[in-house]
Amino acid sequence: MVAASAALIVRKAVKDLLPSIEGPVAVAVSGGADSLALAAAARMVTEVRALIVDHGLQQGSAEVAREAAAQLEPLDIRAEILEVRVNGPGGTEAAARRARYEALRAAHDGVILLGHTLDDQAETVLLGLGRGSGPRSIAGMRPLDPPWGRPLLKIRRTVTAGACAELGLKPWCDPHNSDPVFTRVRLRHEVIPLMEEVLQGGVAGALARTAGQLREDLDALDALAETIYRDNENMLVAGLLPHPAALRRRVLRRWLKDAGVPELTDGHLRSVDALVGEWRGQGGVWLPGGFVACRSHGRLCVQPPGRT
Amino acid sequence: MVAASAALIVRKAVKDLLPSIEGPVAVAVSGGADSLALAAAARMVTEVRALIVDHGLQQGSAEVAREAAAQLEPLDIRAEILEVRVNGPGGTEAAARRARYEALRAAHDGVILLGHTLDDQAETVLLGLGRGSGPRSIAGMRPLDPPWGRPLLKIRRTVTAGACAELGLKPWCDPHNSDPVFTRVRLRHEVIPLMEEVLQGGVAGALARTAGQLREDLDALDALAETIYRDNENMLVAGLLPHPAALRRRVLRRWLKDAGVPELTDGHLRSVDALVGEWRGQGGVWLPGGFVACRSHGRLCVQPPGRT
Repeated sequence: MVAASAALIVRKAVKDLLPSIEGPVAVAVSGGADSLALAAAARMVTEVRALIVDHGLQQGSAEVAREAAAQLEPLDIRAEILEVRVNGPGGTEAAARRARYEALRAAHDGVILLGHTLDDQAETVLLGLGRGSGPRSIAGMRPLDPPWGRPLLKIRRTVTAGACAELGLKPWCDPHNSDPVFTRVRLRHEVIPLMEEVLQGGVAGALARTAGQLREDLDALDALAETIYRDNENMLVAGLLPHPAALRRRVLRRWLKDAGVPELTDGHLRSVDALVGEWRGQGGVWLPGGFVACRSHGRLCVQPPGRT
Repeated sequence: MVAASAALIVRKAVKDLLPSIEGPVAVAVSGGADSLALAAAARMVTEVRALIVDHGLQQGSAEVAREAAAQLEPLDIRAEILEVRVNGPGGTEAAARRARYEALRAAHDGVILLGHTLDDQAETVLLGLGRGSGPRSIAGMRPLDPPWGRPLLKIRRTVTAGACAELGLKPWCDPHNSDPVFTRVRLRHEVIPLMEEVLQGGVAGALARTAGQLREDLDALDALAETIYRDNENMLVAGLLPHPAALRRRVLRRWLKDAGVPELTDGHLRSVDALVGEWRGQGGVWLPGGFVACRSHGRLCVQPPGRT
């Protein structure tokens, strides 16, 4: 078997996702290997424009953005540099991500392709797992989650680097990507390699594969919950009780979100579900934002703040 | 707040599980801290017998078994030593586990408590994740999975060690537990501590918590699939099609297992499901054991080996 060219592998991945996409396509380009290889591949398959975000956080960031645009020129890709200001809560990393995604959304009316790879997916799963924020957090990123498209989620980072080399592209190496102050960097350079060694290889692929299957399972539960909710918007207890608790909690989340409850933990949902599954005449359940959920005359109800 | 005694924490965990258990209770004791603390706690709460397995694999294993029995004597726990022979496929570790579980089952007609802790659960989840064998493999072990009961799944290993110290018990330190030839040992001593450092603590608890929530989600899907199967044992395509693919695949697994298909991968189930969800008149799907699944006159059928 002849080894497939890295550039061809990337191109095939983009081609596979495109039929699911409607309207004009943009590619978010950082100048790194993943997004450069993605832009080049996308350009071979369809009409694209590139969006380059300059966060203005690192010295010379304007130069990096211009250099990325210059790399795209010979590929006949029109690039637009978006200057953003980063502020707001949550640390620089989270704030920069938020500002970037906002600027990208504002600049393009259609799907925006992102260069996340299988390695990014594996890191995301491990991050979610380490935080214990529930099954959804370890189900990882979706290939298509409009306006975002991620065609490279099954491709290793080594392949995008190979594609750049084949195409004569010179990717920028973000120093942040090797700064151990970032949790993600340490997962990438320390935790995953150790896991690869201990579990004898294939860990990143295994993490991504499990995430994919898990996503399908969780999507199925969400779809079922949506149907149950639609059929029982009056929240009759009799219409909830026959369903498994894991499904009921999803219906409750959907209903309480609709009612305007600002945030809900697993603990809140369990307390409300006890009104259904462990009913012994208990009182209302206090929820964030001053809402109260209670059971009355065989149905659940939620009272807005100030009504109690 | 006064720190609760470790022995009390262990006892409470056993007490919490007991109402779900019927019949006589045994405790599997290796002589290690987890199972000694478990046996002592169980004895305070109910009538128990201890079962000690001597695999005969390590030198002095008979002595270790006798010593474990001696530790239990002052606690007024009757111990029985089960001598097993380890052979069969799958490496010594897997073969020893199989032989141990078989001997325990044979020796006791009722629930057998095992000393698996939160740390064991975290290791199990990481092992499953690293192998990429699907969501079920990262859902971890169940607290009650008759004949097995695992009351300590929410308790750290440090707590069982503390309980032994409080009770004056002298646990045996299995040299296997620090031999880096075992994957599980390296996960315990290298991978999880590094994750704890990188993700700033709480990793073992997070892994176990996510596993618990995931188990509920997967159990809900299995229960729904069982109902769909019961309502449509004739496997009419029209009765399968409205359900999400993740649910359909579970129904198919259930049906094909019933038909005697010896093993099924995710790939097999997806091919059979294509007969439902991506029907374009394709032929039968070959399955392990010489079975063939096909679609005919609006229903699925499976042909046993030799019928084609």
